[in-house]
Amino acid sequence: MGKKCIGVDVGGTSVKLGLFEITGELVKKWEIPTRKEEGGKYIINDIADSILHQVLAQENVSFKDIEGVGMGVPGPVMPDGYVEVCVNLGWREKYPAKELSDLLEGLPVKCGNDANVAALGEMWQGGGKGYTDIVMITLGTGVGGGVIIDEQIITGKHGLGGEIGHIHVRDEETEHCNCGGVGCLEQVASATGIAREARRKMAAADTPSVLREAGDQVTAKDVLDAAKTGDILALEVMEVVGHYLGVALASLALTVDPQMFVIGGGVSKAGQYLVEVINRHYAQYMPISENRGTIGLAKLGNDAGIYGAARLVLG
Amino acid sequence: MGKKCIGVDVGGTSVKLGLFEITGELVKKWEIPTRKEEGGKYIINDIADSILHQVLAQENVSFKDIEGVGMGVPGPVMPDGYVEVCVNLGWREKYPAKELSDLLEGLPVKCGNDANVAALGEMWQGGGKGYTDIVMITLGTGVGGGVIIDEQIITGKHGLGGEIGHIHVRDEETEHCNCGGVGCLEQVASATGIAREARRKMAAADTPSVLREAGDQVTAKDVLDAAKTGDILALEVMEVVGHYLGVALASLALTVDPQMFVIGGGVSKAGQYLVEVINRHYAQYMPISENRGTIGLAKLGNDAGIYGAARLVLG
Repeated sequence: MGKKCIGVDVGGTSVKLGLFEITGELVKKWEIPTRKEEGGKYIINDIADSILHQVLAQENVSFKDIEGVGMGVPGPVMPDGYVEVCVNLGWREKYPAKELSDLLEGLPVKCGNDANVAALGEMWQGGGKGYTDIVMITLGTGVGGGVIIDEQIITGKHGLGGEIGHIHVRDEETEHCNCGGVGCLEQVASATGIAREARRKMAAADTPSVLREAGDQVTAKDVLDAAKTGDILALEVMEVVGHYLGVALASLALTVDPQMFVIGGGVSKAGQYLVEVINRHYAQYMPISENRGTIGLAKLGNDAGIYGAARLVLG
Repeated sequence: MGKKCIGVDVGGTSVKLGLFEITGELVKKWEIPTRKEEGGKYIINDIADSILHQVLAQENVSFKDIEGVGMGVPGPVMPDGYVEVCVNLGWREKYPAKELSDLLEGLPVKCGNDANVAALGEMWQGGGKGYTDIVMITLGTGVGGGVIIDEQIITGKHGLGGEIGHIHVRDEETEHCNCGGVGCLEQVASATGIAREARRKMAAADTPSVLREAGDQVTAKDVLDAAKTGDILALEVMEVVGHYLGVALASLALTVDPQMFVIGGGVSKAGQYLVEVINRHYAQYMPISENRGTIGLAKLGNDAGIYGAARLVLG
């Protein structure tokens, strides 16, 4: 029996866990509910109990077979493992990795930001497999990201590494982002942002469009589906989205110059069409060199977090 | 006598060299002309000869006292040391580090891009001394940069790491940058860019200004000097420059999150005033956290290259 590692992805609703061979094969995965009451004080205990039960009891794996446990949490994690606040979990001022390690007989535990950890997972066994340097951009309700250089997460010195969603890209924006800024990438390239852009375009002109049937209920999926069929208004929306994503990717390429950009999150279900839109705009802002990072799709879906967490503890 | 290292900064006009203690003290520095004729074929030989003469003969330092030689060159350097092209030197398809090592009895030699290497120098003994993670931005005729994480240059997988000057920041720009792009940071924040912005403002309105005396000959220094005295038009120019620099720094902070930004180059002679302008705009695009990288001035001037090159070979 080979050595194992465990990946834990702590979300606001459920905690996903996975047992892996250190070579990257998923042995089993399972979930437990996230108990957020009383400042999330039960979460770490629940994770420890679940590991003891699901892995050590059920799988007949002993502590000495486990290299360690990695954990992704929804908030900034300082280089020393300190978590000042995780709004979605109710956590304040914690060292979650140390707490979990103490409950697991001192097993090595490492903790990282969930978006960064997902990027590491995609590098290890997903869309970026075979590469050492990738940037992942997750286009979901918000826009998250992770920068991986030499197989290591760029956490940053204040936990802000890979906070790609809040890069300012749009000077003419007037509404505020959740972060307090104006003109963030997230405001235009998230699922929410794409839908908003569609509502704006519908209000600004009379261009006929299938999107008008949905009206204010229009979704990012509606926009992408319509764009693929050639709907003019949807194509206009995607030109705006593609422009700002292309600008952001070029900016990242000229900063950390990865081998590959991995696009994930719900919006990435639009597949190769989305990659082509982004790539066209990205190329426009990279005239400096055709020898540059490529763009592709994420492959692990919601499992990226457990894969990356497991990889995190392998160093 | 302590161990030594040698830093070489290969420029288009002259090659600067420095002998250092490995602890960072500069022992001596000197220059030789850059012989660019015949594809720059004499440059590496000249460097080797100069090291043999100035260091091994004159300083009575033997090969065993030297840890190695670092070299900064004006062009992209691949992770394996390959230089496809250095326009300013006439070089094509070379491994300059290997060539120099072969001429110096196999002494370890490392090669890096000059702007990246200067950033490493400022981290080691300059404005970023005491830090491990900095981003340097050099505001000169162009805009260069270097990203240092954990005391290592982020070279990037295609030699594009730290090419900060060509980050696209200005959507409404219409003129082309030297790189072929439109709206690059360099077009607005270089000395050339600041002067151009001043010419544009003078042409666009009748605002009285001391800058009108210089007319089309206005320089970045004129603009910064006038802005410090409260000249309205110069202040307007610096608001534009500060905006785009602030946006770029925030974008970098949300990607690699350094401890410090080090501002260098001729424009940085404007000192603390420039830092304050940039910082005000940077803060505006970083509402996500007040715990973030600070902004300060470079300290090594034209010696940053030899310091960084010497540091490069120390690993």
